[in-house]
Amino acid sequence: MIITLKDGSAKEYSEAKSIIDIAYDISEGLARAACAGEINGEVVDLRTIVDSDCSLNILTARDEKGLSALRHTASHVLAEAVQRLFPEAKVAIGPSIDTGFYYDFESAPFSREDLDAIEKEMKKIIKKGAKIERFTKSREDAIAFFKEKNEPYKVELIQDLPEDAEISFYSQGDWVDLCAGPHLMSTKGVKAFKLISSSGAYWRGNEKNQMLARIYGTAYGTKDELQEHLTMLEEAKKRDHNKLGREMKLFTTVDVIGQGLPLLMPNGVIMLKELQRWIEDLEDNEWGYIRTKTPLMAKSDLYKISGHWDHYKEGMFVLGDEDKDKEVFALRPMTCPFQYYVYKAEQHSYRDLPLRYGETSTLFRNEDSGEMHGLTRVRQFTISEGHLVVRPDQMVKEFKDCIALAQHILQVLGVEEDVTYHLSKWDPENSEKYIGSPEVWEETEGHIRAMLQELNIPFVEDVGEAAFYGPKVDINAKNVYGKEDTMITIQWDALLAEQFDMYFIDENGDKKRPYIIHRTSMGCYERTLAWLIEKYAGLFPTWLCPEQVRIIPISDKYHDYAAQVEQKLKEARIRCSVDQRSEKMGYKIRDARLNRVPFMLVVGAKEQEEGVVSVRSRYLGDEGQKPLDTFIRDICEEIRTKQIRKIEVEEQK
Amino acid sequence: MIITLKDGSAKEYSEAKSIIDIAYDISEGLARAACAGEINGEVVDLRTIVDSDCSLNILTARDEKGLSALRHTASHVLAEAVQRLFPEAKVAIGPSIDTGFYYDFESAPFSREDLDAIEKEMKKIIKKGAKIERFTKSREDAIAFFKEKNEPYKVELIQDLPEDAEISFYSQGDWVDLCAGPHLMSTKGVKAFKLISSSGAYWRGNEKNQMLARIYGTAYGTKDELQEHLTMLEEAKKRDHNKLGREMKLFTTVDVIGQGLPLLMPNGVIMLKELQRWIEDLEDNEWGYIRTKTPLMAKSDLYKISGHWDHYKEGMFVLGDEDKDKEVFALRPMTCPFQYYVYKAEQHSYRDLPLRYGETSTLFRNEDSGEMHGLTRVRQFTISEGHLVVRPDQMVKEFKDCIALAQHILQVLGVEEDVTYHLSKWDPENSEKYIGSPEVWEETEGHIRAMLQELNIPFVEDVGEAAFYGPKVDINAKNVYGKEDTMITIQWDALLAEQFDMYFIDENGDKKRPYIIHRTSMGCYERTLAWLIEKYAGLFPTWLCPEQVRIIPISDKYHDYAAQVEQKLKEARIRCSVDQRSEKMGYKIRDARLNRVPFMLVVGAKEQEEGVVSVRSRYLGDEGQKPLDTFIRDICEEIRTKQIRKIEVEEQK
Repeated sequence: MIITLKDGSAKEYSEAKSIIDIAYDISEGLARAACAGEINGEVVDLRTIVDSDCSLNILTARDEKGLSALRHTASHVLAEAVQRLFPEAKVAIGPSIDTGFYYDFESAPFSREDLDAIEKEMKKIIKKGAKIERFTKSREDAIAFFKEKNEPYKVELIQDLPEDAEISFYSQGDWVDLCAGPHLMSTKGVKAFKLISSSGAYWRGNEKNQMLARIYGTAYGTKDELQEHLTMLEEAKKRDHNKLGREMKLFTTVDVIGQGLPLLMPNGVIMLKELQRWIEDLEDNEWGYIRTKTPLMAKSDLYKISGHWDHYKEGMFVLGDEDKDKEVFALRPMTCPFQYYVYKAEQHSYRDLPLRYGETSTLFRNEDSGEMHGLTRVRQFTISEGHLVVRPDQMVKEFKDCIALAQHILQVLGVEEDVTYHLSKWDPENSEKYIGSPEVWEETEGHIRAMLQELNIPFVEDVGEAAFYGPKVDINAKNVYGKEDTMITIQWDALLAEQFDMYFIDENGDKKRPYIIHRTSMGCYERTLAWLIEKYAGLFPTWLCPEQVRIIPISDKYHDYAAQVEQKLKEARIRCSVDQRSEKMGYKIRDARLNRVPFMLVVGAKEQEEGVVSVRSRYLGDEGQKPLDTFIRDICEEIRTKQIRKIEVEEQK
Repeated sequence: MIITLKDGSAKEYSEAKSIIDIAYDISEGLARAACAGEINGEVVDLRTIVDSDCSLNILTARDEKGLSALRHTASHVLAEAVQRLFPEAKVAIGPSIDTGFYYDFESAPFSREDLDAIEKEMKKIIKKGAKIERFTKSREDAIAFFKEKNEPYKVELIQDLPEDAEISFYSQGDWVDLCAGPHLMSTKGVKAFKLISSSGAYWRGNEKNQMLARIYGTAYGTKDELQEHLTMLEEAKKRDHNKLGREMKLFTTVDVIGQGLPLLMPNGVIMLKELQRWIEDLEDNEWGYIRTKTPLMAKSDLYKISGHWDHYKEGMFVLGDEDKDKEVFALRPMTCPFQYYVYKAEQHSYRDLPLRYGETSTLFRNEDSGEMHGLTRVRQFTISEGHLVVRPDQMVKEFKDCIALAQHILQVLGVEEDVTYHLSKWDPENSEKYIGSPEVWEETEGHIRAMLQELNIPFVEDVGEAAFYGPKVDINAKNVYGKEDTMITIQWDALLAEQFDMYFIDENGDKKRPYIIHRTSMGCYERTLAWLIEKYAGLFPTWLCPEQVRIIPISDKYHDYAAQVEQKLKEARIRCSVDQRSEKMGYKIRDARLNRVPFMLVVGAKEQEEGVVSVRSRYLGDEGQKPLDTFIRDICEEIRTKQIRKIEVEEQK
């Protein structure tokens, strides 16, 4: 048989051989680094026997899929260590994930001290370096095995496997787990790991089930990579919007109100209000949008037309019971059909199009309790949602304008470098999932590709990520922990006008179907706020700061002058306060800095006499004295232009 | 026996006498005008026999309660006429109402032609002037009577009467109705009536029941009064926001979305956006409010603390089923507890108070389908809701400021003359419905009374209209049909802080309960929009007009200059459009007027040459030529100051 390797070279063997043996045949270094294999694109165990011609890639911890096998082994080591220290703990499941691995146990919650002890035990297991072996059992034997061990979750997992599934096990010394693999050859391969945290998690993610204790950990191929990740985590924690946003009193959550329903506090609302007014005015005054305000709920009748009732009911909050109530309502998960009915409320001629409807829209998603996170995974959110009803001949220009608008917004927010653009395309191999002919898909995707190129936007093309009705542009960003979310989406839709019987009257007096662009400009306000918190670590551009100026009188003799300064700033609509406390100057300055106020105005005898202020800014530090009017003029200009300034003072960064 | 009459005089009789006989004894004119009697404050039939000392008021159609009896008789005449013309119609109920009377029938819907025929028939019945007589029957006989007549609704009504109820009937000739009265002595007493409209109505107002056909009519004591009412109705219809608001494309409703869930269209949103920004900026920049944005739903847990779960569940939209779901949510009917939790998210010292929380808040009420009306009775609405958390010693000043703020808003909207102020007080006769001692109620009401007096606001005092926790100021207004609604409310609350365990730290470091003011400043945005539509018949002050200026080129030669003018206006943020159609000038001007655009700028050769515009305004008619910059300066000033100008041109009124 002929084995073609990744670098194009080939190996020929006369008999079947395991991947790990082939690795040793190539080099001992490779064999030691190997975590898994990939045969003809399929990830497999190193133990897998190769017995026919194939292409083979030997994966190490440098490969995503190799690292995944390493982390999976780490999760088994974790489980063994836990059962050594807590023999009563029952094992549930323990996969590798993007950032490491976890294992769920039926057990009392684990403390940080427990995690430290478990880490020590894991090191012992790794040092001992038991060989990892794979074997299979019949369904009956497998169930009997775990019943004897009193592991009910494993029994349930086996019972739920398909009739014809191979039931495989991995052992490391005495400790055995039900597992599909792949795994390293020995526990010794787990060289750099760390337990990160513990939390509760429902068995199978269903809140009706038993609450289990989950331990999160991470593992890397080298100690350096691990350290880099841990340093990143430390940094991320400082910026984590779910921590910093609460510290800065931007939002809070309340148990009796519910998860995923954050309360925006006054500081947070100041920022949202600035963002909202900016976006609304930008859209309406400069991009020709007209604004709607449509209801947040509708009868099931509406969602039956839109298809949500059949395809998305689980994700919606439903009010009432179809069997009992004459009318059943649901909270809306999107604004589309509501804006369509605003369009349909009047007859439109070809001359009226394009019509660009915008709404600062509240949407609802019935997410599971376990899924909630800060301002990013929520049950209710606010979005700059819009639908453009256009003639087919206007589609390209309008779509391009939507991209340009999004791009402008990202630039103003200073996050344009942090996003990736995606052309989400159909999958011709699965054409039954889409509507429309291949020619139309090719053409439409070609239009969007050309637009992105014309706008000089680098982008990647994602096959199979289109909506069923057309391709789209998704603009994604990562949070501090590296998790990627779509921030903005712009979608090409030549279909829904038909479903909702929308039309315009053309030059000849005939009814014609318009095209629709579904788009957000800034996307979800709460998510954007979270993004900005993490991007700027709370040191927002001045126009967004809840407090823009702190006035600090050097003693209570200057409270009157401080009040005059405050009055003048307020007249110019600058958000400010006076620190009248009888604390030391240094304390007050530190406090203003901790509160992330970009400008401090220190006022004392000299300032009062000369009508000036001593400026200390986040950006330049001590800027010396300035006439008050000059300061006001400068900061107003900075606010008006939404300037993003470089922070040149070390202590502020 | 001695009968004391309304004017203080007394009549003495030696034997029992009916009220109508007493009326004849006073004067034949009074007897002819009499509609009902009032004995010791209780309204009764003219047929009632007086047999002991009492105070007696003989009510005519000039008295509200007398008019009500007359209208009730009119409804019987209506029912008889319907059954003469439509023998298969079944009678349900037919009361008098504020604006006249109605009667519900099981029948096919009635057309306007039907109503005209019924009116004719009613006139015949009235002309014939059958004597109206009252009699009673036992329950069995009463049921048998209507069973024989095949009147199932009457049978059901009797069956639902309490066991010991007297079952009374009124006959007019052959026609008999189940009725508690009172009624006139003869059908002849219905001298001036008119059938207004017909509509569907569910039996007993419950949408699960049979849909009936309702006929609305009105009746007065004189033809002049009737005519005045009909003229008012005609006028009202022109201003009715539910008609005019749709014509002006301010809002629409959609069957598949649901009743009571209006969609605000772009023109309406322009107005709401103007109102909302004005109110938010006014509150935040001039009255010291801080803004929250809190979730629109919460778990039942929250409403259990607030008491809504026990006392208001029927009025709320509930998501989920308490028996089945782990968490049950409900859409909020008020913002109070949400803002309390924003307060509770931080610890506050006495120095931090007052804290004035404002929110442009969306609320939900689970109203019955039959109750919905335009923008005023809806299932979802937006409100300028606020809660002030204050120290007890700050309560009077803050409460007064809330009244002053409301007063300012009413003045700016030009509706300050159209409202009535109410001091809603407790009812000492029903003190068990309230919390707190009589002394505290007297004192608090005294404070509010003094504030209203100090502010020179005329007001009425309504006993028994307070909230259970304290007195309030309600500011009411009437719609075009005379129906009164509360537009603004300001409530004194010394109780709920306890329920939600809210406190502040006083000078001595002790925890103290704050007081709370619940208040709206402008109230409900949708309702205010309806009110403004009716107040101004769509001719809004310029700052609120969806379109403020229409530019009309006299021919297509001047389209370029028109576009320049448009550009300049838009730069000044004036909402405008150019009428480029090739229609006659007169047509375009009429069209702009029909669209209620306050300013038209006509541009032609002369205007282009000299850089001027010919101004035609709603207010002064033809204002002649003005330099464009002057026009812009003037209109911007008018908008900035929210000026309400007098309309001096007849055709515009």
